[in-house]
Amino acid sequence: MKTLFYPHDLVIVGVSESKGNMGRTIAENLDGFMFTGDVYLVGRNRGRIGTRIVYRSIRDIPVTPDLAVFLIPASHVAENLEACGKKGIKRVVIESGGFSEFADEGYEVEQQLLNIAEKYEIRFIGPNCISIINLDNGLVLPFMPMDPAVMQKGMVSLISQSGGIVFGGLKLFSCENIGVNKLISIGNKVDLNENDYLNYLIKDDETGIIGLYIESVSDGRKLMQIAASTDKPIVVLKSNTSKASNEIASFHTSALAGNDTVCDAAFAQAGMHRVKSFGEMADLFKIFQLPPMKGSNLAVIGRSGGQIVMAADAASDNNFNLIRFPEELLEHIGEHARARVIRLTNPLDMGDIFDLGFYAEVVEAVLAEPGIDGVVLQHLHGRGAETEATMELIKNIKKLSFQYRKPVAFCLMTERDEWFPLKTSTDFPLFLEPCCAIQALAASRRQAQLKAAPPSPLKAMKPVRHPGKSIMVAGIKETFELLESNGFKSADYKFAKTKENAVEAADKLGYPSALKIASSQLVHKTDAGGVTINIRDRTGFEKTANEMYDNFASLFRENNAEFMVQKMVDGGMEVILGTRRDPEFGPVVLFGLGGIFAEVFKDTAIRVAPVSENEAEKMIRQIRGYPLLAGFRGHLPCDLASLKQLIVSFSHILMDSPEIFNLEINPLIVLNDYKGCISVDARMLVNQC
Amino acid sequence: MKTLFYPHDLVIVGVSESKGNMGRTIAENLDGFMFTGDVYLVGRNRGRIGTRIVYRSIRDIPVTPDLAVFLIPASHVAENLEACGKKGIKRVVIESGGFSEFADEGYEVEQQLLNIAEKYEIRFIGPNCISIINLDNGLVLPFMPMDPAVMQKGMVSLISQSGGIVFGGLKLFSCENIGVNKLISIGNKVDLNENDYLNYLIKDDETGIIGLYIESVSDGRKLMQIAASTDKPIVVLKSNTSKASNEIASFHTSALAGNDTVCDAAFAQAGMHRVKSFGEMADLFKIFQLPPMKGSNLAVIGRSGGQIVMAADAASDNNFNLIRFPEELLEHIGEHARARVIRLTNPLDMGDIFDLGFYAEVVEAVLAEPGIDGVVLQHLHGRGAETEATMELIKNIKKLSFQYRKPVAFCLMTERDEWFPLKTSTDFPLFLEPCCAIQALAASRRQAQLKAAPPSPLKAMKPVRHPGKSIMVAGIKETFELLESNGFKSADYKFAKTKENAVEAADKLGYPSALKIASSQLVHKTDAGGVTINIRDRTGFEKTANEMYDNFASLFRENNAEFMVQKMVDGGMEVILGTRRDPEFGPVVLFGLGGIFAEVFKDTAIRVAPVSENEAEKMIRQIRGYPLLAGFRGHLPCDLASLKQLIVSFSHILMDSPEIFNLEINPLIVLNDYKGCISVDARMLVNQC
Repeated sequence: MKTLFYPHDLVIVGVSESKGNMGRTIAENLDGFMFTGDVYLVGRNRGRIGTRIVYRSIRDIPVTPDLAVFLIPASHVAENLEACGKKGIKRVVIESGGFSEFADEGYEVEQQLLNIAEKYEIRFIGPNCISIINLDNGLVLPFMPMDPAVMQKGMVSLISQSGGIVFGGLKLFSCENIGVNKLISIGNKVDLNENDYLNYLIKDDETGIIGLYIESVSDGRKLMQIAASTDKPIVVLKSNTSKASNEIASFHTSALAGNDTVCDAAFAQAGMHRVKSFGEMADLFKIFQLPPMKGSNLAVIGRSGGQIVMAADAASDNNFNLIRFPEELLEHIGEHARARVIRLTNPLDMGDIFDLGFYAEVVEAVLAEPGIDGVVLQHLHGRGAETEATMELIKNIKKLSFQYRKPVAFCLMTERDEWFPLKTSTDFPLFLEPCCAIQALAASRRQAQLKAAPPSPLKAMKPVRHPGKSIMVAGIKETFELLESNGFKSADYKFAKTKENAVEAADKLGYPSALKIASSQLVHKTDAGGVTINIRDRTGFEKTANEMYDNFASLFRENNAEFMVQKMVDGGMEVILGTRRDPEFGPVVLFGLGGIFAEVFKDTAIRVAPVSENEAEKMIRQIRGYPLLAGFRGHLPCDLASLKQLIVSFSHILMDSPEIFNLEINPLIVLNDYKGCISVDARMLVNQC
Repeated sequence: MKTLFYPHDLVIVGVSESKGNMGRTIAENLDGFMFTGDVYLVGRNRGRIGTRIVYRSIRDIPVTPDLAVFLIPASHVAENLEACGKKGIKRVVIESGGFSEFADEGYEVEQQLLNIAEKYEIRFIGPNCISIINLDNGLVLPFMPMDPAVMQKGMVSLISQSGGIVFGGLKLFSCENIGVNKLISIGNKVDLNENDYLNYLIKDDETGIIGLYIESVSDGRKLMQIAASTDKPIVVLKSNTSKASNEIASFHTSALAGNDTVCDAAFAQAGMHRVKSFGEMADLFKIFQLPPMKGSNLAVIGRSGGQIVMAADAASDNNFNLIRFPEELLEHIGEHARARVIRLTNPLDMGDIFDLGFYAEVVEAVLAEPGIDGVVLQHLHGRGAETEATMELIKNIKKLSFQYRKPVAFCLMTERDEWFPLKTSTDFPLFLEPCCAIQALAASRRQAQLKAAPPSPLKAMKPVRHPGKSIMVAGIKETFELLESNGFKSADYKFAKTKENAVEAADKLGYPSALKIASSQLVHKTDAGGVTINIRDRTGFEKTANEMYDNFASLFRENNAEFMVQKMVDGGMEVILGTRRDPEFGPVVLFGLGGIFAEVFKDTAIRVAPVSENEAEKMIRQIRGYPLLAGFRGHLPCDLASLKQLIVSFSHILMDSPEIFNLEINPLIVLNDYKGCISVDARMLVNQC
């Protein structure tokens, strides 16, 4: 991959002398950003741009450059890729559009490109992209004019499935004074995809923070594996979550929408930071440039009483503690302040102190406290009079933040005339208001926690996209046996083909009992009236068995339906455990309280399998109904240790059994005390081929 | 109030010749903003500033000005207020700090000020504030230097409990190019409070949009009344929601924190738009400058595929429909576009069209569609080359938006060098990214709906701040009788003083039955074991009655406890109905599913009483558990018509009975079909004095 970002020489294919020709613009960008390598030009008409010759074909170039950049009609891409292969060029950037994002025939052409690439061992970016910007060596390949004057080199690199997002990002980063390193527009990701670039950026010394804009996930498990392998923060903006956006995204970069809830869970599990907007992304890029927030003890210092009250609200919303400052510190500040009209608390209102040098002193004193993990400094800049003092303050705060290895989120407001002069006077990140800075600090804390306890690695699995028609419902017996072999206890049960045998079975198992129809024809048996629970005695049982037999007579006669007799389980809480193969992330596990809690309240937790003990514990605690499991209002707590083990074990079933597509225990009863869990009902879908 | 904002002449008290004197700064501000009235100066040392004399006392001024502005130590405020009274000055601005926000003794001084004011019929702002900025007449009274060059006059007025928020607001509005009209820092609101200013701004012709920053609510019901009386949008930022911020706010503007959930409900009920940050507030100020969003059909047009995918996500999150564009429109666009590489959908990707004039054409065509209610136009500005075209586009879009009376939220991104030149080239609001614009459009839609169906007016009530020790628990009998007289049916019950009478009662009521201990000493009777339900027959009942009597023997012997025998109610869903007096908003009503749903899932809806039928219906539909009431999985729906009527009726009880402090029915059983509701248990707290 390094050749792609640091080529010694390259050729642009699709150049003409005419002004505004996009190939020509690329050459101009390379010159403007002082790209150090040699640049060759190829176009249909021989000619000259500056001192460079325009060659008629790739064949004609006197050397074999490291990289070729295509800006030619879609119909000419294949032949030129072939030409690269023959020439020995191994890295190609295909910026041209008009492939699968536009029409279904595009898929075929893309497949053809893959074949040529494979034949010649070529790796390529795109098609349908604006490709690469590398400010580290001036490799600026977009076909639109770019200006180094409004960009700043830094440690943020961005991978984007949309070219417009790269351009938008550049504009936003320019306004937000965020320094960037490498920007990659990945287009239709026919060959190289986000995972390849992510892998590279993780190893790239110049990149400290990684942004990822995607509309679809190429291989979710691999993405998680890669993300979990690094200490670098990864901020991900995954769009295309709604039906309407799905429609446009599929046109635009051939995206396949996945289940957004699974994405959410998967990204978090792999330690990525998901954001919902550009603005949030920018705030996270800023916070990750600061030392990490290692704990939850925050100091808020500011000069607008109102804004620090809002900061305290945000701190509380994000589970930060505004701990009391030590007496000595308070005394020191008190002496300096016009103590008559200020009170000393955290948040600390510096409203009546105009000496900005003293702000830095207070921040230093606070940072020196071992109990404080980070600071929010809110500053309303006094235009004109304070310009130098504010610049000096920013400089000092930057020094202090790195010296004490704690984040100081500097929030600045000023009028429009000093906004950019102040921002661009520094490379220290500046936030607008405390609430945004505090949300970002929460992400920094999450990142620090990840470093301390990195996510467990995931086994790679081939994604299963099309279960097809070969899926069938497994028998309940088979399902229970599978679960039992994985450590699950089932509620005592017996099968019976006749009413008489059913009554016999119920007598043996004991009352109260439940009677169910077991038939692969009857998947939703409760809704169909095929389940009766809490039958108290033999008389009731006989009556129920008769009725059920009559109602489902044909199933018994023609489809080998059986009675399933179960002993009722006494006490405990009903939960649901489910697992299915997600097209993007493979086996995922869902846990929640049973019945209406899962169905109406959607009170569930999701993880990509396998689930570690640690994650299983988090799943249990994550649902809103957790207090009901933990022992509510004087009830004994449920056996959560057993539940945790079973979630872990359950999460391995789909990993180990490629033929299982879907498995659900509903309900699983978690007994009180240390009595374990009991499966009452379960269903399984199995892939037959 | 008008005199306060448009005085013919005023006197500044606390002026000296020395540079940086704050009183002097005020005079300079007035000159800088070309205040048209006469300005008189008063200070301890006679002198001269420019051509103005500094008088020694208020008495010495040759006229009786409309307004006096104090910037003097707290200890001198009372005597000067007295002097104003004697002089005949009726409006005073007290900017000085050092009152109740600083020390408890401040309350006494504030009371003294109120007394003086009353004596002379003076109304005053503050103390502890930066007072008024009125860009309409140049009345700029803050004691810090202000510069007209970075402000813009417009239709937004802001009332703020924090002076720093006014300054911060000015800076933000400067950067966001939001035109302001009147800014009011209300300080400790000893005399005039937010409600007075709100009332004035509602009548003020120059104000079209009102912002409100508060840390405490002075009289919540009155605020709701006033807010509900206007068509002008009111955006409220209420901070001080957490414990930590409460601490600082109480120092800073003497705030008393209320229950934030009640605030949330009350603001919504009165048609105010609550925001959580400055940034959100700015977005709402922008959207309300546009024609209203009258429906949910949105068109998204943009040039960054990625950003319009994100816009579609945001549209879906905010319940907007991206309806299909009519064929004709699509054809027209298709002809113009490089149709080969673009597909025509809503959201519409204009990425390959560079003629910005055509953007305006498309927007016009879309606006002309009767089925479309509003547009989001996302623009990535091409620096330099496009400057004129972009300015022209903004101008055209502004014209079109007002011509077609539909909002077009213009989202603009550009590099830092053109950011302010583009923004300040227009007074048309510009958003950063579609997600924020779409959230704002949702607020615009809410506002339009309010105009169509304004909130019902509330009766004013004196807030009850201190229930004190005179509160007592009412008997269950009394409580049931009160409820019955308000249309509630109770589950059949009888009281019994002895076990024998209890058994008799149960026999008469029929089984299954419930047995409870009725005693004012036993408020949480379920937790104490004083409730047994579902007793099946006489044998069981006798056993239970014996056990209960033994367990609560002393209550029976010494405290007149009785047995309460109830017939069990068959079927239905348990809900909870509660009402209490909120210190800020008076009687509020809470509704939710009973038991763990309210307790663990906090699945409740709150309104300020009285609740209209319409609001009662919204409460029922608002809770997450609504599907369980509406008929879940083939069950009959509950009697929601009856429930709705009872919520309305319940909401009047505290309105009509000033002695009731708290009333709760838990559970109220909502029966299926049209069988009504039945109260099973209830408790009431009554104020004895």
